[in-house]
Amino acid sequence: MSPIGIGVIGIGYWGPNLLRTVMSTPALRLRWACDLDSDRARTALGPYAAVQLTDSFEEVLDDPLVEGVAIATPAGTHSELVRAALEAGKHVLVEKPLTDSVAEGRKLAEIAESNGRVLMCDHTYCYTPAVRRIRELVRGGDIGEIQFVDSVRINLGLVQPDVDVLWDLAPHDLSILDFVLPEDVVPVAVSAHTADPIGAGRACLAYLSVWLSTGALAHIHVNWLSPTKIRTTVFGGTRRTIVWDDVNPAARLSVHDRGVDRLSASSLAPDARRQALISYRVGDVLVPALPEREALMAVMAEFAGAITEQRLPLTDARAALRVLALLEAATESAEHDGAKIAVAADLVSR
Amino acid sequence: MSPIGIGVIGIGYWGPNLLRTVMSTPALRLRWACDLDSDRARTALGPYAAVQLTDSFEEVLDDPLVEGVAIATPAGTHSELVRAALEAGKHVLVEKPLTDSVAEGRKLAEIAESNGRVLMCDHTYCYTPAVRRIRELVRGGDIGEIQFVDSVRINLGLVQPDVDVLWDLAPHDLSILDFVLPEDVVPVAVSAHTADPIGAGRACLAYLSVWLSTGALAHIHVNWLSPTKIRTTVFGGTRRTIVWDDVNPAARLSVHDRGVDRLSASSLAPDARRQALISYRVGDVLVPALPEREALMAVMAEFAGAITEQRLPLTDARAALRVLALLEAATESAEHDGAKIAVAADLVSR
Amino acid sequence: MSPIGIGVIGIGYWGPNLLRTVMSTPALRLRWACDLDSDRARTALGPYAAVQLTDSFEEVLDDPLVEGVAIATPAGTHSELVRAALEAGKHVLVEKPLTDSVAEGRKLAEIAESNGRVLMCDHTYCYTPAVRRIRELVRGGDIGEIQFVDSVRINLGLVQPDVDVLWDLAPHDLSILDFVLPEDVVPVAVSAHTADPIGAGRACLAYLSVWLSTGALAHIHVNWLSPTKIRTTVFGGTRRTIVWDDVNPAARLSVHDRGVDRLSASSLAPDARRQALISYRVGDVLVPALPEREALMAVMAEFAGAITEQRLPLTDARAALRVLALLEAATESAEHDGAKIAVAADLVSR
Amino acid sequence: MSPIGIGVIGIGYWGPNLLRTVMSTPALRLRWACDLDSDRARTALGPYAAVQLTDSFEEVLDDPLVEGVAIATPAGTHSELVRAALEAGKHVLVEKPLTDSVAEGRKLAEIAESNGRVLMCDHTYCYTPAVRRIRELVRGGDIGEIQFVDSVRINLGLVQPDVDVLWDLAPHDLSILDFVLPEDVVPVAVSAHTADPIGAGRACLAYLSVWLSTGALAHIHVNWLSPTKIRTTVFGGTRRTIVWDDVNPAARLSVHDRGVDRLSASSLAPDARRQALISYRVGDVLVPALPEREALMAVMAEFAGAITEQRLPLTDARAALRVLALLEAATESAEHDGAKIAVAADLVSR
Repeated sequence: MSPIGIGVIGIGYWGPNLLRTVMSTPALRLRWACDLDSDRARTALGPYAAVQLTDSFEEVLDDPLVEGVAIATPAGTHSELVRAALEAGKHVLVEKPLTDSVAEGRKLAEIAESNGRVLMCDHTYCYTPAVRRIRELVRGGDIGEIQFVDSVRINLGLVQPDVDVLWDLAPHDLSILDFVLPEDVVPVAVSAHTADPIGAGRACLAYLSVWLSTGALAHIHVNWLSPTKIRTTVFGGTRRTIVWDDVNPAARLSVHDRGVDRLSASSLAPDARRQALISYRVGDVLVPALPEREALMAVMAEFAGAITEQRLPLTDARAALRVLALLEAATESAEHDGAKIAVAADLVSR
Repeated sequence: MSPIGIGVIGIGYWGPNLLRTVMSTPALRLRWACDLDSDRARTALGPYAAVQLTDSFEEVLDDPLVEGVAIATPAGTHSELVRAALEAGKHVLVEKPLTDSVAEGRKLAEIAESNGRVLMCDHTYCYTPAVRRIRELVRGGDIGEIQFVDSVRINLGLVQPDVDVLWDLAPHDLSILDFVLPEDVVPVAVSAHTADPIGAGRACLAYLSVWLSTGALAHIHVNWLSPTKIRTTVFGGTRRTIVWDDVNPAARLSVHDRGVDRLSASSLAPDARRQALISYRVGDVLVPALPEREALMAVMAEFAGAITEQRLPLTDARAALRVLALLEAATESAEHDGAKIAVAADLVSR
Repeated sequence: MSPIGIGVIGIGYWGPNLLRTVMSTPALRLRWACDLDSDRARTALGPYAAVQLTDSFEEVLDDPLVEGVAIATPAGTHSELVRAALEAGKHVLVEKPLTDSVAEGRKLAEIAESNGRVLMCDHTYCYTPAVRRIRELVRGGDIGEIQFVDSVRINLGLVQPDVDVLWDLAPHDLSILDFVLPEDVVPVAVSAHTADPIGAGRACLAYLSVWLSTGALAHIHVNWLSPTKIRTTVFGGTRRTIVWDDVNPAARLSVHDRGVDRLSASSLAPDARRQALISYRVGDVLVPALPEREALMAVMAEFAGAITEQRLPLTDARAALRVLALLEAATESAEHDGAKIAVAADLVSR
Repeated sequence: MSPIGIGVIGIGYWGPNLLRTVMSTPALRLRWACDLDSDRARTALGPYAAVQLTDSFEEVLDDPLVEGVAIATPAGTHSELVRAALEAGKHVLVEKPLTDSVAEGRKLAEIAESNGRVLMCDHTYCYTPAVRRIRELVRGGDIGEIQFVDSVRINLGLVQPDVDVLWDLAPHDLSILDFVLPEDVVPVAVSAHTADPIGAGRACLAYLSVWLSTGALAHIHVNWLSPTKIRTTVFGGTRRTIVWDDVNPAARLSVHDRGVDRLSASSLAPDARRQALISYRVGDVLVPALPEREALMAVMAEFAGAITEQRLPLTDARAALRVLALLEAATESAEHDGAKIAVAADLVSR
């Protein structure tokens, strides 16, 4: 079977990574590097790569040997480009966020579905060995029921010209949440507080609360202004708690048999005090071995697999829509002093 | 000058620390250890200490050689005990929170003021070398203006029988904030989200946003259910950012010359894009040497000093009231889906 | 049964810890605090303790209610004091090193044995939960055979006036090694390099190699001049490897299923290259839960238990002698350019 | 000026990095990728690179457009390949170790010198921002005189088929030492202990002591069997101490104003005790900001610069010879029970 012809669109901050991983994936064949600024594309490819350059998206779409495109342009342009590509019969891998509104995203999803094309969103973290393992642990029941989720993703980050920190960073956390939670646990409401202390013209730090259908609370802190880099997510469960510390290669994932339990009252004498009903587990910690594998390579393999097998990719347009629904609600909440905003069940159910 | 006679009231979880530090402070003289459960007091003192035991608070108050009492009973009893002690003419050091309502706290403050007695709240962290240094750095202008504050205080903690996690842990962060912020920067509103995922009957984790009069946002995460212990507070400033990591003895405090600046537009050509106005500092980090000193010893020295010098202690009843005002507002917010609750200026101004 | 009367001798750097833990141990009764400088003893006890002070060791020995003494005087005085105490019929707990020569140590051991008195050396680390667990793991076969041991114990430490860094710090590592290794694995030779770069008049840093009877190499780095504090010991085994990082309370002990194995040649084709015989294990890491318990409290319990049950303590005079034999050989090696010095089998066998 | 034509020889473990960085260096032009196994070279280059492949070293040498070669073949082949390349008039960048004996290395150095060709050894770490800064700090006098050096480089590493752990890993530490030490401080003797606990047929862990001409002791621990990865080097100085922790990106380098000083006796009363002459500094720690730059890119820039400017590269053949002299002495010591082996002054002086 010959490799799938690919055009990479947008060679800015992230695009060079798409170029490199497409080129390293045997099932794909890079045919075009496309950017309005062809010098930038030229520089990213270097002087040795035998790859065609163009500043014309149409030229890429017109190439019948191109079966799919990978889009890494600014978020505001996604909608138009994805639509054009799908309508030209191409499969699409697009950076997060899929687009800038649920309404528009839904249209794109529908086009993909009616055209039978793959529309995949690059929720990169879902393809890391750590998140894959977390999903197994959560869905396999190892940690019991989710009690809380707390995620911190802060760093001295690039202040984006087109999106605020919520739309830049929270898609990572929200897509991971979507990927990891059991099918029947869905977000029902959000509340967000944001701030722009440097006068950048958009939120540079944000706190986002997400209530789940089980009553559990998930909380996300994203911040471009932190001098230290923290990427830690905790999944507290009734049986165990997972700590994912992505900047600690020696113990990226740890599964703690620690927690607080409430005992069943029936097992105690009627006059036992409330406090007596609480017990503490302080057990071992397991640090599972994880393969060292670049997530973006797995993204490319999944894109190729979905195209070849004519199936939905793991992070399909519907997953992207669920993330969009939460981002939209978060923005609305932030504009209303953190008011709790419900998300429509049809948007977030799976 | 002879040492100041002291009675320690309440020998439960924290009381033994009061006993030990009173006994180690030359300016104080422990005269009574008082607990309703005298076995508990006996055990805490051990078989060697020549200290009187009693289960009668009145007996302590009746002793004319007792000039001050240190109270570590459950929060719900503070109000009655503090009032009785003040009215008996004793100086009072009381554990946080001062009491369980602003209204009641204000009365206690007024009694202390009219009686000319010291009423000091044990905001222990304000007496750590780290927080003392942070106060100097913030108030001395070293970090510029505060842009944001982010505090995380999580651990597998004791589920308290009488207070929720907000009232148990957030007083630490709020008292530190009160202590560190410049005089003219005050909290103006709060929003809180809490959860009780284990069915303990009270909040076991909470997220608290505090808006400051400058527009900056402070955020506090307190949690009894975390398998890992984190005690980190970040003070982001226009010039530098302080990271206080209290569980890292090798670098408890670090001052980062890192951040994001917005350049003055006037220094740029009129058509420079917004993005061009952002610049990044990635400078050195300084880890200042701090003395290793037990905070509670400094608390005792301050209590003795305030009594002897007939002055207000560093963490006086008014500071405790400001913390109470925020806790009360936070509870109200949590009961109303995180609604933003303003705090009255007269309660929080200094 | 009434508690065992104890005198603590030497109230300098470590003595106050002996006072405190004797006083906290129900099975013991502190009868005397003895120091040539009685102010120092007075200060250590504080104004509340009902304990007799003396500057006369004889007075302690003459007290028939004193059954045991705990000695924390300078190492050079141990020999005379231990001997006098044993001859007065007292049980003895003595700080490490037992004394300053094997010859003298052997005499003390013999006196204790002939008098039927307990002579216990305070090899404190052997009483930590971490080392207890390591011993179980090593002796229970969980890690397979020991392949190597590497220990680093460095800090900005007090330059001792009477002993060099080898005699000050290496007893910790050597006593742990003695405690942990299986009965039939014994040291056979040592080599040591030392340096005194600050001109202190004695070695301030040292590297010590210890060859075991199995051929495995143990290495110890002790250093008073390091700006950072490291206390890490690795026990490499054929099946698993233990890492003990004593300054990391979140993961003091970790058991790694990681290593390099040599495959049996018989399972491979005859022409397989040597390299093919090597395989790598990269498995999970387990961080066992350990109780938080003060080692010195366990030391006191063991001392009391050995006296009461008329048995050898876990770290008896013979264990102390084995440590002395290695220290003496290390000193000889250091004086001869690191020459490999054999240790006599009768000194180190168990 | 047109780029310098380069052939990369040996596309095994490290060769692909040479390929990539040559291709990313504007001053260089990759003309050949050469490996006996041309599939391996093909795979490393990928399907897009317009680069000639060959399994013939002669073909590369015969190409007049090739001005330099970068050699990453097994150490045992270096001598023959380097010699042939130099004799063919090519400049040479070769992986460490330069070759397997001082005698052979010296001949290569002489050929390069007489031919006027650049012979550079890839002492990669000398090109990291951290080591560059350490060199400035040490040579600029910021840390005072070196008191001790302690280096630990341990990991679960590949057991090499052709060299032991000393020849595999210690060249890093020795080349850094050579690069960092002031011109007039040179090694004078070494002692090494090695072990092969897995029966690999060569040393898998080694401890190496290096005495400097000032009397200071440097110590290196290299180990292929450690389950944890540590890469830490400490440079203890009379004024400050540098800690380089290469696996800690948040504080790769820290400069500690901590240490132990001996006071001048003349400033003290004649009867002051020795202990009184010791003082302790516990000052601040500075974590300097370092650029994030790939060392191998700087290696390539230096190779290009040395060729263009017809000058010695920073890590020239003489530096490589000094490292070889220490490795040879270390091997001799390890074969003689760790005997202290002097190194000839002419070999290690600069």
